[in-house]
Amino acid sequence: MEFDTIAAVSTPMGEGAIAIVRLSGDEAISIADQVFKSPSGKCLKEVDSHTIHYGHLIDPKTGQIVEEVMLSLMKGPKTFTREDVVEINCHGGLVSVNRVLQLVLNQGARLAEPGEFTKRAFLNGRIDLSQAEAVMDLIRAKTDRAMNVALNQMEGRLSKLIRKLRQEILEILAHVEVNIDYPEYDDVEEMTHRVLLEKSTHVKSEIDKLLRTSEQGKILREGLSTVIIGRPNVGKSSLLNALVHENKAIVTDIPGTTRDVIEEYVNVRGVPLRLVDTAGIRETEDIVERIGVERSRQVLKEADLILLVLNYSDLLTMEDENLFEAVEGMDVIVIVNKTDLEQKIDMDRVRELTHDKQLVTTSLLEEQGIDELEEAISSLFFSGSIEAGDMTYVSNSRHIALLNQALTAITDAIENTEMGTPIDIVQIDLTRTWELLGEIIGESVHESLIDQLFSQFCLGK
Amino acid sequence: MEFDTIAAVSTPMGEGAIAIVRLSGDEAISIADQVFKSPSGKCLKEVDSHTIHYGHLIDPKTGQIVEEVMLSLMKGPKTFTREDVVEINCHGGLVSVNRVLQLVLNQGARLAEPGEFTKRAFLNGRIDLSQAEAVMDLIRAKTDRAMNVALNQMEGRLSKLIRKLRQEILEILAHVEVNIDYPEYDDVEEMTHRVLLEKSTHVKSEIDKLLRTSEQGKILREGLSTVIIGRPNVGKSSLLNALVHENKAIVTDIPGTTRDVIEEYVNVRGVPLRLVDTAGIRETEDIVERIGVERSRQVLKEADLILLVLNYSDLLTMEDENLFEAVEGMDVIVIVNKTDLEQKIDMDRVRELTHDKQLVTTSLLEEQGIDELEEAISSLFFSGSIEAGDMTYVSNSRHIALLNQALTAITDAIENTEMGTPIDIVQIDLTRTWELLGEIIGESVHESLIDQLFSQFCLGK
Repeated sequence: MEFDTIAAVSTPMGEGAIAIVRLSGDEAISIADQVFKSPSGKCLKEVDSHTIHYGHLIDPKTGQIVEEVMLSLMKGPKTFTREDVVEINCHGGLVSVNRVLQLVLNQGARLAEPGEFTKRAFLNGRIDLSQAEAVMDLIRAKTDRAMNVALNQMEGRLSKLIRKLRQEILEILAHVEVNIDYPEYDDVEEMTHRVLLEKSTHVKSEIDKLLRTSEQGKILREGLSTVIIGRPNVGKSSLLNALVHENKAIVTDIPGTTRDVIEEYVNVRGVPLRLVDTAGIRETEDIVERIGVERSRQVLKEADLILLVLNYSDLLTMEDENLFEAVEGMDVIVIVNKTDLEQKIDMDRVRELTHDKQLVTTSLLEEQGIDELEEAISSLFFSGSIEAGDMTYVSNSRHIALLNQALTAITDAIENTEMGTPIDIVQIDLTRTWELLGEIIGESVHESLIDQLFSQFCLGK
Repeated sequence: MEFDTIAAVSTPMGEGAIAIVRLSGDEAISIADQVFKSPSGKCLKEVDSHTIHYGHLIDPKTGQIVEEVMLSLMKGPKTFTREDVVEINCHGGLVSVNRVLQLVLNQGARLAEPGEFTKRAFLNGRIDLSQAEAVMDLIRAKTDRAMNVALNQMEGRLSKLIRKLRQEILEILAHVEVNIDYPEYDDVEEMTHRVLLEKSTHVKSEIDKLLRTSEQGKILREGLSTVIIGRPNVGKSSLLNALVHENKAIVTDIPGTTRDVIEEYVNVRGVPLRLVDTAGIRETEDIVERIGVERSRQVLKEADLILLVLNYSDLLTMEDENLFEAVEGMDVIVIVNKTDLEQKIDMDRVRELTHDKQLVTTSLLEEQGIDELEEAISSLFFSGSIEAGDMTYVSNSRHIALLNQALTAITDAIENTEMGTPIDIVQIDLTRTWELLGEIIGESVHESLIDQLFSQFCLGK
């Protein structure tokens, strides 16, 4: 395919040592050549691919030096986009990088849309859609595990699995064809039905298996939305601080909004906790008071993990009991804090209320019990199995939704086969399964979906 | 010189398309070679300098893929540091970049200190100290003009000027030598004194000229600390908004402190205004009320520019008059706002109070007078001359201090010559001038000063 030449800043905005302005397209090299001047006067059109050149950017209008740069030149198709790519490494200041970008835009490059470089890699056939989506997951990964999941997906593991399943469905469909084309042979039909059931059941179980990874996959990708609740003065803030200080806090500015939205992540043994912002945690005081009020319950319901804190050195109150009621049926870890003080709490009653949930006793003041708490968090969501680095996890909501639809379609196919429904109905179910799986890797998807997908990317990727 | 191999993340922290981990030192290539695997299996030690290679980073301990990368290899001395340099371009997420950095540190690289790459460029003789300092100014530049000043300095313009002056001083010293060595020739002494005075006066005037650029240079480099004052409801917030919206607001996270300190810059016709944060502007309400209190005056005194806002549709009050008194002797622009409403203010009295300061009338509501205000700000600090892009500005406080000391020393030399002080005293003054100028470009400076200078750099530079 042929496209115009795009340009964007590909490094995060901010002050850094180096920033990169990236160009991709047929004109990338000639645009760079118009503004680049090396000390030896070499022409960029004549240099080898995958080489680096020192020099200055000169504004052709004024003749003035715009920046001192290192320029990397890569000729397609062995590039990220399969097109000619030029990366201009300049000094990483805001003015500097804007000047360089402006200069190449003035020479005829177009400002790239978010994700447009990756989109081209997809449209030019270098990667499929699930690999393209993994590129963004790589960047957004909050923990090593999430990164491994994304890397596996980008290496094409999910794509390979999906392709294998689609191949199997095609084979089933071939059997079905035989049945439709030669209806006079009764034993062919007999055989086809058996094979069809067997093969469809296998496809179903594979989709099932993939979907079972999705809960963990989603957690790895998006983090667990975590709320700390408890009466005033039980140690909620201390708990927050303990989690943040014991672990590496990951602070992220969401691109594009800079200072509007800031999320805080804490990496607890590979589980990314997305801590509801401090203001939210302060507000739980109100939640405790107004427990039973529908809106407060809603706040709790949106959380993936609730840390319910009790005071070891105080009697259980009605408020505490109400908290247990409010979090019924949710993922809760009960924390009895302040074991450094004299016991007043009725631990039997606590155990009764806790029931089958996890219970941890801590003295945050004396830094006791934090390990146990982290262990509890980790075991609640991962049963050890995740350590295997080479599992394929489905983590993307779009993939999960498509897999669920494919599961329904293949289940219909199986049920219809069992009920003796005419084989051309079964054929429709199978074809639908095949199409839905195809959407995951970007075969048979609408252009609008593609646009929408890539628009979530960050600029310059 | 020979150093160990250092590594650091050279792009700003945050989510971006690409991040760079940079290695520099004798072991840079062999460290990269231990973890890099290209599809074709090539050995990095054997590839050409200034080439780019696609491949994966593999953790030698686990054999697992750590990242998909583009690796740039540059052999010294034609590099930023004059050492072997490897730049690893990886996906720009926090986890990704930390993993890559960790991997190379595990292989024996040492985490670079802030500015250590540039420090090596200096220690290895690729750039002098004033050029190294310009590197940081480039990154921190808030406007195009500031960027041009830094670029000129990095290109070595200031260094060249300083070297020329030092050469002149050496020539004067040679004349002095002749005088000391051959005191018996009276006419030699006569001639020497005349030449000495003439040449010293020239050096002095050159230093003077450089220093005269320093005020503007400092403004370009650091921005004007700007405070908006006025009674409640005169339009202070509207003024702030007008300045921010009319111009490109530059928001900067100061590296290292991430969310603690945030400065806001507005670029008004090339003049960077460093707006005292919004909280500060809100606090001026208090300043108005407590005017005359010493502490409030102090706040104003620290500002480089004061925008004093009055209400066109209200009578002048005692408060207003006090404000004029409080800003006496400072750089003030008086703004009479709300000209869209009926006049109640006594403009004659305003002009009297304004005296020789600039006076602008605005209707911020109707967007009137903002151009005039910006013109006033620009003309207050730059008398047109700055447009010439190739002037050499002294903007660095260290340089300014050294130039001032050099000016004193050369003035002493001239005065002593005129007074007929023994020539060896004059010789001391001249040598001192020569040394002080040398410190600007990094000749004859202490190691501790160098350490301190580079520690102000950002990581990875």
